[in-house]
Amino acid sequence: MTRVYNFSAGPSAIAESVLKQAQSELLDWNGCGASVMEISHRSKAFISLAEQSEQRLRSLLAIPENYRVLFLQGGATTQFAMIPMNLLADKQRAVYCCTGAWSQKAIKEAEIYCDVTVATDSQSDQYTGIAEQSNWTIDTQAAYLHYTDNETIHGVEFGYIPDSKGLPLVSDMSSNLLSRPFDVSRFGLIYAGAQKNIGCAGITVVIVRDDLIGNVISGTPSMLDYSKHAKQGSMLNTPPSWSWYILGLVLEWIESQGGVNRLAELNREKADKLYAAIDASDFYRNPVHPDYRSRMNIPFLLADSALEPVFLKYAQEAGLEGLKGHRSVGGLRASIYNAMPLSGVERLIDLMNEFERDHG
Amino acid sequence: MTRVYNFSAGPSAIAESVLKQAQSELLDWNGCGASVMEISHRSKAFISLAEQSEQRLRSLLAIPENYRVLFLQGGATTQFAMIPMNLLADKQRAVYCCTGAWSQKAIKEAEIYCDVTVATDSQSDQYTGIAEQSNWTIDTQAAYLHYTDNETIHGVEFGYIPDSKGLPLVSDMSSNLLSRPFDVSRFGLIYAGAQKNIGCAGITVVIVRDDLIGNVISGTPSMLDYSKHAKQGSMLNTPPSWSWYILGLVLEWIESQGGVNRLAELNREKADKLYAAIDASDFYRNPVHPDYRSRMNIPFLLADSALEPVFLKYAQEAGLEGLKGHRSVGGLRASIYNAMPLSGVERLIDLMNEFERDHG
Repeated sequence: MTRVYNFSAGPSAIAESVLKQAQSELLDWNGCGASVMEISHRSKAFISLAEQSEQRLRSLLAIPENYRVLFLQGGATTQFAMIPMNLLADKQRAVYCCTGAWSQKAIKEAEIYCDVTVATDSQSDQYTGIAEQSNWTIDTQAAYLHYTDNETIHGVEFGYIPDSKGLPLVSDMSSNLLSRPFDVSRFGLIYAGAQKNIGCAGITVVIVRDDLIGNVISGTPSMLDYSKHAKQGSMLNTPPSWSWYILGLVLEWIESQGGVNRLAELNREKADKLYAAIDASDFYRNPVHPDYRSRMNIPFLLADSALEPVFLKYAQEAGLEGLKGHRSVGGLRASIYNAMPLSGVERLIDLMNEFERDHG
Repeated sequence: MTRVYNFSAGPSAIAESVLKQAQSELLDWNGCGASVMEISHRSKAFISLAEQSEQRLRSLLAIPENYRVLFLQGGATTQFAMIPMNLLADKQRAVYCCTGAWSQKAIKEAEIYCDVTVATDSQSDQYTGIAEQSNWTIDTQAAYLHYTDNETIHGVEFGYIPDSKGLPLVSDMSSNLLSRPFDVSRFGLIYAGAQKNIGCAGITVVIVRDDLIGNVISGTPSMLDYSKHAKQGSMLNTPPSWSWYILGLVLEWIESQGGVNRLAELNREKADKLYAAIDASDFYRNPVHPDYRSRMNIPFLLADSALEPVFLKYAQEAGLEGLKGHRSVGGLRASIYNAMPLSGVERLIDLMNEFERDHG
């Protein structure tokens, strides 16, 4: 078996020790004599798994007690609808920042339910940066302010928590939750699909302040009502138990790595090295303003775009997978989440240098 | 490693050969050098997996070409909302049969969106049977007729396809899809969570006639719109890729067992043996009318209910798990889906006889 370095944007690399544990206990989990996939979600063993994963997440992110932690289905795209359905209450308006493709999608879905005003929009800059907050327009009578903390496709990441002018702050952290510490108490709601930094696809983490839930708009399905999930410990129906299990193992792995502070240092180091290699050459280029460059997803272009398929083939032959840019923007992209080791980034940099020597 | 006989109602037993294959390729699937959990759902390898699983399901159930097969998230409970949201169109009414706890839940959710008229309701019989169709009331101006083909909690199963008087027929087959052949062309829509006969939790199969989709009611989230999923090959967003993969392996396993016809014979044999053992004794009792007894979920009571926890402990010590009845109805329940071998049912019957000898 040869494992590749996997730079896929999501689903994406999972630490090998997590996979090995899942493999070893796949037919007999926790002494149950059955796979974790086969046992009742109402069993003591599974409820304990669920509770432990919540406690681990609370501890890793220092989540205050007045926040609920939910484990849901449907990915971030379902959250795009759930957020207005649950948070609008009697307001008719919400404010969104538009900083890339995922912001755009969130806005489009919210417009089904309310008037959206856009605080800042970097589309005219091809999403290569974010305007200073002093230039934002925030309607302080709106229900909440939504922003995408890390734009997976455009490689744009907020380096700070925005000032929401008193509105509940809502953030899509699908691609950077658990990659660095931050102050949860600044937020009304945080959500993240698991398939980047938290495990495999099929489960979505929602961290929401208690007082914001319980007041859905008319016509909201039960499964899209945060308060119903909260009352049932995220087991309103059968949860995606395998994905929950993998999430639990990944949280354990993060603890074993020294927690979110230590991963943040490593993530900084990995990203700095890769950006430095890109910037050191005219052969490669990253278009994002240095202040807003993502530490997680690093898109890059070749000066001669005709060489991009050649580069991809060259990388694949060297055991580096998932480097193709998103189909909507083209180019190349290295996603270097928590589970990507520094050695993988160094191998990529070596390969980029070799390729430039051969083709530059 | 000792594997138990797992009678859990869901999540439930998966064939050991499926688990062993998943285990063997957990770190390196299909020569990718990565887990199936780690690779992009847009990769050729994963898209091929998705297409093959659809083709296998189409072949196993002889699904006509004018039906779409969707692989969704959120379980049957999400379908309870999606069905009215997608099928009501300009109608304000739907007809439901109420034959157990799951019918009740489906009705309650549908009432968010429309007036529900109940064609037949067996609550007054404690859900121990289903009234003759000649006694049903069907509003032929309604949008559709919904029924629950197998009631997992009450152990009640339709032995026939109801006559819907021209309405699109919608069926929850969460706990018996793929357990026997049937004529898909009689239906407008069929749905099933995977965690009983089709794999692990986290993925839901929907089979829907082409002409019924594309006309959602106002306020329907994109993720709850069948037509959007249909257009994107069930990849409107990142799908639950592990659950999809296991589903594919389970379909392969069903083929290897001789397909749905052969499994139907085995399921009949397993159920007949267990009901015969229950009926042969005054010590055990199943309350359901023989015409409507489920082949999948067999609830049974002890004449002396105080012995039920003793029986459960006795069974556990013998390696038989998951026999506790649903918390809403108590008693005992043996779920004997496709993956439960005849030997497991025979072991249960032996154990019931032994227990009766010791405690009768």
